[in-house]
Amino acid sequence: MIEQRNEIPHLILAAKVRKGLSWSTIADALGQSKEWATAACLGQMALDANQARTVAELFELPEDAAAWLRTVPHKAADNLASDPLVYRLYEVIHVYGGAMKELIHEEFGDGIMSAIDFDMDIQRQDDPKGDRVRIVMTGKFLPYKRY
Amino acid sequence: MIEQRNEIPHLILAAKVRKGLSWSTIADALGQSKEWATAACLGQMALDANQARTVAELFELPEDAAAWLRTVPHKAADNLASDPLVYRLYEVIHVYGGAMKELIHEEFGDGIMSAIDFDMDIQRQDDPKGDRVRIVMTGKFLPYKRY
Amino acid sequence: MIEQRNEIPHLILAAKVRKGLSWSTIADALGQSKEWATAACLGQMALDANQARTVAELFELPEDAAAWLRTVPHKAADNLASDPLVYRLYEVIHVYGGAMKELIHEEFGDGIMSAIDFDMDIQRQDDPKGDRVRIVMTGKFLPYKRY
Amino acid sequence: MIEQRNEIPHLILAAKVRKGLSWSTIADALGQSKEWATAACLGQMALDANQARTVAELFELPEDAAAWLRTVPHKAADNLASDPLVYRLYEVIHVYGGAMKELIHEEFGDGIMSAIDFDMDIQRQDDPKGDRVRIVMTGKFLPYKRY
Amino acid sequence: MIEQRNEIPHLILAAKVRKGLSWSTIADALGQSKEWATAACLGQMALDANQARTVAELFELPEDAAAWLRTVPHKAADNLASDPLVYRLYEVIHVYGGAMKELIHEEFGDGIMSAIDFDMDIQRQDDPKGDRVRIVMTGKFLPYKRY
Amino acid sequence: MIEQRNEIPHLILAAKVRKGLSWSTIADALGQSKEWATAACLGQMALDANQARTVAELFELPEDAAAWLRTVPHKAADNLASDPLVYRLYEVIHVYGGAMKELIHEEFGDGIMSAIDFDMDIQRQDDPKGDRVRIVMTGKFLPYKRY
Amino acid sequence: MIEQRNEIPHLILAAKVRKGLSWSTIADALGQSKEWATAACLGQMALDANQARTVAELFELPEDAAAWLRTVPHKAADNLASDPLVYRLYEVIHVYGGAMKELIHEEFGDGIMSAIDFDMDIQRQDDPKGDRVRIVMTGKFLPYKRY
Amino acid sequence: MIEQRNEIPHLILAAKVRKGLSWSTIADALGQSKEWATAACLGQMALDANQARTVAELFELPEDAAAWLRTVPHKAADNLASDPLVYRLYEVIHVYGGAMKELIHEEFGDGIMSAIDFDMDIQRQDDPKGDRVRIVMTGKFLPYKRY
Amino acid sequence: MIEQRNEIPHLILAAKVRKGLSWSTIADALGQSKEWATAACLGQMALDANQARTVAELFELPEDAAAWLRTVPHKAADNLASDPLVYRLYEVIHVYGGAMKELIHEEFGDGIMSAIDFDMDIQRQDDPKGDRVRIVMTGKFLPYKRY
Amino acid sequence: MIEQRNEIPHLILAAKVRKGLSWSTIADALGQSKEWATAACLGQMALDANQARTVAELFELPEDAAAWLRTVPHKAADNLASDPLVYRLYEVIHVYGGAMKELIHEEFGDGIMSAIDFDMDIQRQDDPKGDRVRIVMTGKFLPYKRY
Repeated sequence: MIEQRNEIPHLILAAKVRKGLSWSTIADALGQSKEWATAACLGQMALDANQARTVAELFELPEDAAAWLRTVPHKAADNLASDPLVYRLYEVIHVYGGAMKELIHEEFGDGIMSAIDFDMDIQRQDDPKGDRVRIVMTGKFLPYKRY
Repeated sequence: MIEQRNEIPHLILAAKVRKGLSWSTIADALGQSKEWATAACLGQMALDANQARTVAELFELPEDAAAWLRTVPHKAADNLASDPLVYRLYEVIHVYGGAMKELIHEEFGDGIMSAIDFDMDIQRQDDPKGDRVRIVMTGKFLPYKRY
Repeated sequence: MIEQRNEIPHLILAAKVRKGLSWSTIADALGQSKEWATAACLGQMALDANQARTVAELFELPEDAAAWLRTVPHKAADNLASDPLVYRLYEVIHVYGGAMKELIHEEFGDGIMSAIDFDMDIQRQDDPKGDRVRIVMTGKFLPYKRY
Repeated sequence: MIEQRNEIPHLILAAKVRKGLSWSTIADALGQSKEWATAACLGQMALDANQARTVAELFELPEDAAAWLRTVPHKAADNLASDPLVYRLYEVIHVYGGAMKELIHEEFGDGIMSAIDFDMDIQRQDDPKGDRVRIVMTGKFLPYKRY
Repeated sequence: MIEQRNEIPHLILAAKVRKGLSWSTIADALGQSKEWATAACLGQMALDANQARTVAELFELPEDAAAWLRTVPHKAADNLASDPLVYRLYEVIHVYGGAMKELIHEEFGDGIMSAIDFDMDIQRQDDPKGDRVRIVMTGKFLPYKRY
Repeated sequence: MIEQRNEIPHLILAAKVRKGLSWSTIADALGQSKEWATAACLGQMALDANQARTVAELFELPEDAAAWLRTVPHKAADNLASDPLVYRLYEVIHVYGGAMKELIHEEFGDGIMSAIDFDMDIQRQDDPKGDRVRIVMTGKFLPYKRY
Repeated sequence: MIEQRNEIPHLILAAKVRKGLSWSTIADALGQSKEWATAACLGQMALDANQARTVAELFELPEDAAAWLRTVPHKAADNLASDPLVYRLYEVIHVYGGAMKELIHEEFGDGIMSAIDFDMDIQRQDDPKGDRVRIVMTGKFLPYKRY
Repeated sequence: MIEQRNEIPHLILAAKVRKGLSWSTIADALGQSKEWATAACLGQMALDANQARTVAELFELPEDAAAWLRTVPHKAADNLASDPLVYRLYEVIHVYGGAMKELIHEEFGDGIMSAIDFDMDIQRQDDPKGDRVRIVMTGKFLPYKRY
Repeated sequence: MIEQRNEIPHLILAAKVRKGLSWSTIADALGQSKEWATAACLGQMALDANQARTVAELFELPEDAAAWLRTVPHKAADNLASDPLVYRLYEVIHVYGGAMKELIHEEFGDGIMSAIDFDMDIQRQDDPKGDRVRIVMTGKFLPYKRY
Repeated sequence: MIEQRNEIPHLILAAKVRKGLSWSTIADALGQSKEWATAACLGQMALDANQARTVAELFELPEDAAAWLRTVPHKAADNLASDPLVYRLYEVIHVYGGAMKELIHEEFGDGIMSAIDFDMDIQRQDDPKGDRVRIVMTGKFLPYKRY
């Protein structure tokens, strides 16, 4: 029996290793992008009833897992912050964050890019000098309300 | 006379306000993308001799500014981390960082996306439900060396 | 001459003390709520051209202040976090944050209350057992995008 | 047998998932608002004898749970601080905290809004541009004692 | 001219050293306890008009000081936390905080001792084995509201 | 069998809930003040042989508990720092710490109030405007040694 | 059965103590340098299929260990930062980091030494005044991209 | 006149930019390695009388600079920790620190590599796949004393 | 079976309580000073084969403990930092650290006192005004290398 | 004119460099040990009237310095914590703090070594294998009060 929702990502990762599944396969089964599906399996998104059942079956999770997967999780872990791959992403913001702020305000005025009405796509970009990771993010621009 | 390199971004921002310049104009004058040019003006990139002279003239900086602009700065400020626009960028990594790690490793194996051999493009993406900020990043994949 | 935007709130506060102005008066002059107007004067909101000129005149700010006030500031200071009045606000979230998360998700599903498309109203609520501070906040609910 | 009081919220959440209960139902059973009741179930409030028995039965908790629920808990968790929903609440204070302080002092003088003699109400506010979360808080104003 | 309110305590301390004043004298001039008066001079309390004028004269502060002293300060500094005298006070809470919580709840139920409706008295207590510092604090008990 | 001394306070609290004991009763059994006795049961003081046996019997602790209770514990927990009741105590020092330092030095010269040769008494103080918590602390003044 | 990848280094270290193996022996079995092999066994590198099988056999790990060892770990622990040996390494960067930055930029221009396309060799260097630890690191220089 | 020793590195860097000097030239003038000389100019090493005079003349420092340069500085700054070049050096220790500890103990037993009786050499290493930074460090092994 | 080396100090402390051993007795059995022996038992020093066997027998540790005790531990815990006895030691350095630095440099020049080639002796010093703790530390002076 | 007490140590250090004074000379002039005198000059101790006048003259401080030197300073700086010499002192406590606690309690029972009724002596100890720094500290043992 599952005692806390944050046990599930560990169960999923262990089952994924054991069964040799890929994230793409899992995304297909869920009918979502691989980015959303992976984040969901890692405990960052709530699933609907069908998806929860699919994930529970795919990874042979305990009986009550599907109910847990439908609840909204506590999101936004930062325990990976010093991992070299993840750190590079933070560093991009350390180096470019000020410029991104200036350029988005220059184009849109005062407001933010939503991290909720947001999507992301990660692809390999072939390059003769060494293939590149290509990350495309779009988020709705939200202007600050005046009142 | 400039005593430390990190005085220059303040001088540039003040001149930009005073003169009403846009980052795009500045980027054109430098012959670089607006992303790189803005980051450079905010003290995150070293300029070559021509660029340094251009920036010094454009913003009417003190005489020794051009020499300072050619030095490599201390990069990667995080004093903007709680600004709402910048925070959303960090939050994207809090929420998606684990998934990004999984997906890049699934596609490329062990290694990282370079934050050095890296570029970024920020655009407005028209959308009837509200325009979106579109950010495209590419970075060379670097595999961990085995030896 | 103003060197950085964050000098302006200090200039405004000093002029407010010297002239004995109230925030309500200032809000009326700006044609905005007292909550938005105060936040703007404290460096948390960008002003439009008219508002910037009004504030500059009202507080007799230096010539370049109006131009600075139209730029988007670096927002979200937390240097007041241990002030007793401000701390109580944080404590409300320490104590009720989990419950607020549960109840908003129960009503709306996965998503957040926007802090950008957001307004706030603070009033005195008469009470024979001691008057109360009444704070009303509304923020647009933003559902997490699925893709 | 329960070893520490902070085990109980996990037991309650697990039972809630298993049984598909809603916070409103629980609040009704307790005869309190949904805000207070949820906070209490999450370990932030002490229950009276009847309430403790009701909660213990509703969630089929171990025998000694009712006695534990009557004790005053260690309150004020901040382990949710980076969750996007909860973070927005903190950000509101980062952005508006200074203004709130100014406006409450302007109206009431030196003192604070109590976080103890305090209540909160969360509702859906219909809005054709997208429904809003409406949060109303009232807290007794407490003037600083002079002596 | 004073630019920020937190300059005043430095001006007061410097004048106090120069003039050789004692806190008791200052308290008498203010007509308040030495505890409240000292805290006020150190920037932790707002003064009324008479008190502000008295303090400004006593310490020969700049002209605008009296107006500043009437504003509510940003309170609650912790920059003294490692000073040995102040640290001992914190340590008392590290060691006894849990016990104080238990005993106040045992006597009063769920709630807190107010730090706002609060007073303090510090005296020398003669003792043949070495004189003691005697600190008496009283704060109104505030029960948690149920609703 | 007890593996670490810091398991004992949890065992004591659980037994106290189960048996419905009060701290006053426990203090009487130990022949100490309720403040010292409670701190000791919460793992902040070493007990003598008689007291250790008394506590072990009263709470029906495992056989080796009495021996552990006679050892000097690792003291000074701060895991309660954000609990509202305990936070108010810290806040008193944030607000008054500078004044307490000034007043103790004015009376005694350079030195500290001991937190070791120290006692504390907590009482209810009846008050028609609402009962108050009254805390009396005395600590030996220790002058800094000159050499 | 292994629940998380970070259990494996503990299993390896325990087996290494039990069996009295040396890191050099392990490196030989893996066909890699002792530096890479040790880091891999401590959970910092992904192994290929042969290596994973070798490590699993050598240390008699549970059945599913080999599959886990092929996954990319969460890297970059800093829980050793205060260990005296490890601290000296950090201190070298505290003391020399600025100089290293200056000298690498003087030789190569703006960019970094890769920590991914990187190798390290640690040897004993005989010295009559006391043997020395000799550490040789090489990392590819990566110039900052201009675009 | 110099008020604190840590003003000198800023003066040196500003003069270096103005005069277009290289660290190698400076090292030659000092008769030390470029690594030691650069660290010394950046405020990490004490200079002898001749060296102090040489540096003061070379950079046309104020009269009292030579006397300051002979004093032992407060060493070990970490304000560069998030600079990408410097971060990579820290990351090497995050990733390899455990392995370095294991391998040095395997070879030498319990003890450390000295960061005081220590030297470092940084060179370009030609490589057809991209030149590499080569860093050689040696430090005396110091065994833990038994007594 | 022991899974990690840091379980051993807990086993030793529990056995010491159970058997009523003193640190002096243990030191005699090890043939080392009480300071070194106690630090070793608390997981700060590696033991030789004889010592490891002695400790394992004395405290009736599990079979594999002796092998673990011979490995070099992860040293330098700071989880006691707020304990009043330990804090006083840190405070001595907060108060005297600058003076110690000045005086050691005045006597020896640039360098440090080794914490590795180091010993310590703790004794009771009789004193009619109250016995004193006397701590004598000696550490080899290590001059900074010039090169 | 001196605005804050913590300006004085900088003035003293600058004068000491300019005049080439040694701490021993200063201590003799003050009639105190070099350890106490140095700490006092670095802003950690209050001076009496004669001493304050002596220091003010010796270092040619501004007129009001003597009055400031007689006030009790804010003590206990930790801004030197990463300096290698000072860090070694902290590391000694990281490594030996647990053992020091055990041994002082074994000898004296529950209590602390005072850091107030405390003295320290630092000497060179000749040693053919390299001279040693010898630090002797004594502090009064203070038993925890029972009540």
